[in-house]
Amino acid sequence: MLEELKKKVYQANLDLVKQGLVIFTWGNVSGIDREKGLVVIKPSGVDYDTMKASDMVVVDLESGKVVEGELNPSSDTPTHLVLYKAFPNIQGVVHTHSTYATAWAQAGKDIPNIGTTHADYFHEAIPCTSDMTKAEVEGQYELETGNVIVKRFEGINPDHTPGVLVKNHGPFSWGTSPANAVYNAKVMEQCAKMAFVSFMVNPETTMNPLLIEKHYNRKHGPNAYYGQKKK
Amino acid sequence: MLEELKKKVYQANLDLVKQGLVIFTWGNVSGIDREKGLVVIKPSGVDYDTMKASDMVVVDLESGKVVEGELNPSSDTPTHLVLYKAFPNIQGVVHTHSTYATAWAQAGKDIPNIGTTHADYFHEAIPCTSDMTKAEVEGQYELETGNVIVKRFEGINPDHTPGVLVKNHGPFSWGTSPANAVYNAKVMEQCAKMAFVSFMVNPETTMNPLLIEKHYNRKHGPNAYYGQKKK
Amino acid sequence: MLEELKKKVYQANLDLVKQGLVIFTWGNVSGIDREKGLVVIKPSGVDYDTMKASDMVVVDLESGKVVEGELNPSSDTPTHLVLYKAFPNIQGVVHTHSTYATAWAQAGKDIPNIGTTHADYFHEAIPCTSDMTKAEVEGQYELETGNVIVKRFEGINPDHTPGVLVKNHGPFSWGTSPANAVYNAKVMEQCAKMAFVSFMVNPETTMNPLLIEKHYNRKHGPNAYYGQKKK
Amino acid sequence: MLEELKKKVYQANLDLVKQGLVIFTWGNVSGIDREKGLVVIKPSGVDYDTMKASDMVVVDLESGKVVEGELNPSSDTPTHLVLYKAFPNIQGVVHTHSTYATAWAQAGKDIPNIGTTHADYFHEAIPCTSDMTKAEVEGQYELETGNVIVKRFEGINPDHTPGVLVKNHGPFSWGTSPANAVYNAKVMEQCAKMAFVSFMVNPETTMNPLLIEKHYNRKHGPNAYYGQKKK
Repeated sequence: MLEELKKKVYQANLDLVKQGLVIFTWGNVSGIDREKGLVVIKPSGVDYDTMKASDMVVVDLESGKVVEGELNPSSDTPTHLVLYKAFPNIQGVVHTHSTYATAWAQAGKDIPNIGTTHADYFHEAIPCTSDMTKAEVEGQYELETGNVIVKRFEGINPDHTPGVLVKNHGPFSWGTSPANAVYNAKVMEQCAKMAFVSFMVNPETTMNPLLIEKHYNRKHGPNAYYGQKKK
Repeated sequence: MLEELKKKVYQANLDLVKQGLVIFTWGNVSGIDREKGLVVIKPSGVDYDTMKASDMVVVDLESGKVVEGELNPSSDTPTHLVLYKAFPNIQGVVHTHSTYATAWAQAGKDIPNIGTTHADYFHEAIPCTSDMTKAEVEGQYELETGNVIVKRFEGINPDHTPGVLVKNHGPFSWGTSPANAVYNAKVMEQCAKMAFVSFMVNPETTMNPLLIEKHYNRKHGPNAYYGQKKK
Repeated sequence: MLEELKKKVYQANLDLVKQGLVIFTWGNVSGIDREKGLVVIKPSGVDYDTMKASDMVVVDLESGKVVEGELNPSSDTPTHLVLYKAFPNIQGVVHTHSTYATAWAQAGKDIPNIGTTHADYFHEAIPCTSDMTKAEVEGQYELETGNVIVKRFEGINPDHTPGVLVKNHGPFSWGTSPANAVYNAKVMEQCAKMAFVSFMVNPETTMNPLLIEKHYNRKHGPNAYYGQKKK
Repeated sequence: MLEELKKKVYQANLDLVKQGLVIFTWGNVSGIDREKGLVVIKPSGVDYDTMKASDMVVVDLESGKVVEGELNPSSDTPTHLVLYKAFPNIQGVVHTHSTYATAWAQAGKDIPNIGTTHADYFHEAIPCTSDMTKAEVEGQYELETGNVIVKRFEGINPDHTPGVLVKNHGPFSWGTSPANAVYNAKVMEQCAKMAFVSFMVNPETTMNPLLIEKHYNRKHGPNAYYGQKKK
């Protein structure tokens, strides 16, 4: 069932390790088949070294129930499902504890858009969610984590800013495929690291908003001209 | 004698290198057989490259005397023994000079619990010991190092916060096995690095205590649901 | 056509990855044949893993038109061309988003010349360009990027200071060959990292200008005596 | 001639790369045969990849003249010779531009002794030299570099503090052999990195001098008990 998607999700999980974004089991990737309403996700707490494509767990988008798989799905599965429901164009979701993005999340600060590297992929500052309430933490915590992300994106287009920092926790990213969500996780980590150094050197630094528009649109706008895609 | 435990301790010592936690001979791991009252520990100042499982030294928990082994045990052996005596559930102890944890120890500061990565494994701030007295430094120094750690844990459950910073020195960690103590050493190093960056970005940052409870219990509480362990 | 130069440019692009200066497709190297007035440059958005020497694109220095090659040239090509026209001695140009140099560019600060490592290769501070105007950003952006660099070098000898930070963007470097431009990109990144740490430790630090002269001339002056070149 | 020493010096030069202390040709190691009054040193500006043991250059300690070797010796040779003459017990000298030690040198600050990692190998703060005069910079610069180091060690035992920061330049270290000098270069770099982080976390931190004595003597004092050496 969904063998192709399982392979893609499996490969994207391994890419998290290759890209230096996770140690131990501290990350997970999922992908979605929107026609079937099914999500494929990494099993919870399983080592990347021994994991197989067939270990990926299939979960129903609506009910959250396991449809196929011997293992428990990632404990963050409810967060992934909320994101798939709220952001209709995304095809993959990633969660990591990557060093610099997590450090900004722990600092409780948005990563400001101060460079074209950031603007090439994220139109806005990478937003940090607000504190969760007692009811949210003690209730359906992982589902509520998804809800605070969605709430934070009121007025922000998730297709143009494909990532978020959950306060005191760490980054989630998404994209047009599981692999693209991993790509965006790597970009976010790199931007978090560079922004840290930039602010140490100059705490007052900002970027001209015109440059944001230029760079974002150069790669993603209707007249994009970066890369080999024919216009 | 204790061949299985020697292999585990040997492998855990090599894992310190693999995890990037030690250079040269700057670290040691031990494991305990509590029934026999014997501790197996790395020999002092021996290279990881040439070390063999059979080089591990067997020491008596009570007397500290070498029971088996050609080589001198780690000079930190008395510290390990104090920890095994004071913390009855621990099965492995690790000492390293890993970069960021050592830097916090040199700063003389607890690593505050400001992120879920930390709270997933350490219930409290990772405490830093106080200055040692002249009598402690000039007396049985390594034994007294163990004593200041134990004193610092008055009111802290060592099973829930499996690590400490010895002021101006470096981290010690422990766990349910030698491998688990290494795992906790890696988590501590990663948390130390992220906390450093977080405090540079926002010196005032804190974490909601509710989130600490949630995350610690999600992995370690009676209703833990992370990973594949059956409830 | 220009097979030798294509190989050199191809190899220099791979060296960007080897030197840790780029991830993904975030960098490009070009080389020039000044007699023929032709520039060879990396194609836009192509993976380093799959790229071949024959994928390098040949562009006319004056018109900027593609003379040979199936793929689109790097979107930064117009910047490269402006630099080749303005700086008549340079034979290679590099653009990267390397971490520390980009962080200084995002900070909008020149990298001051505070060490002999810097002075060995860059006679001046590595200058950061000023903000681009609305007309520059919305017009021929990549060409104007070249123009702001050239303007920033009024009074600075580009042969003695072979690199620049484009504000909020990242570093460009150049040299006596594509490989030498990559070398200078690596030096710039290393100097950016060290200067960051130096300023954290001592925000007031400076270097004696005499030392700058000494070191720059030891390697590059008429009486240079570093290395094996005969005087 | 001196084939054994050449091999040791050659291997120690390669170890600089392996230990991550140099990129390109930014480092050199020498060793001495004190009976013969001859120093073996890396040739200037030669790549580590292609260098052979037989490329090592033999130089006369007193005159500084090349006694054997086709290539120019390191341009830092006069500094090495001054150190061998002033510090009679040292058998190897290393110079690098390693990142964090160089950053402290650029900051013009001693690396304070705030941790036992430092105290295990360096009894004092790692001193930073003062500014060189116009006459020193414009005269026999490399020889004068040696002289400012020696001057800085008035009142400091170079056998107990085997390294120095040359202001705005970088670290020199030495030891009981070429390999030991490399070892000390690595310790210095690691201490420089940890001290940077410690001071960011707590700019006021210090270490109890008793702890310095304890740790230095535990490894190097008359009653040293670290490692496997018989007392």
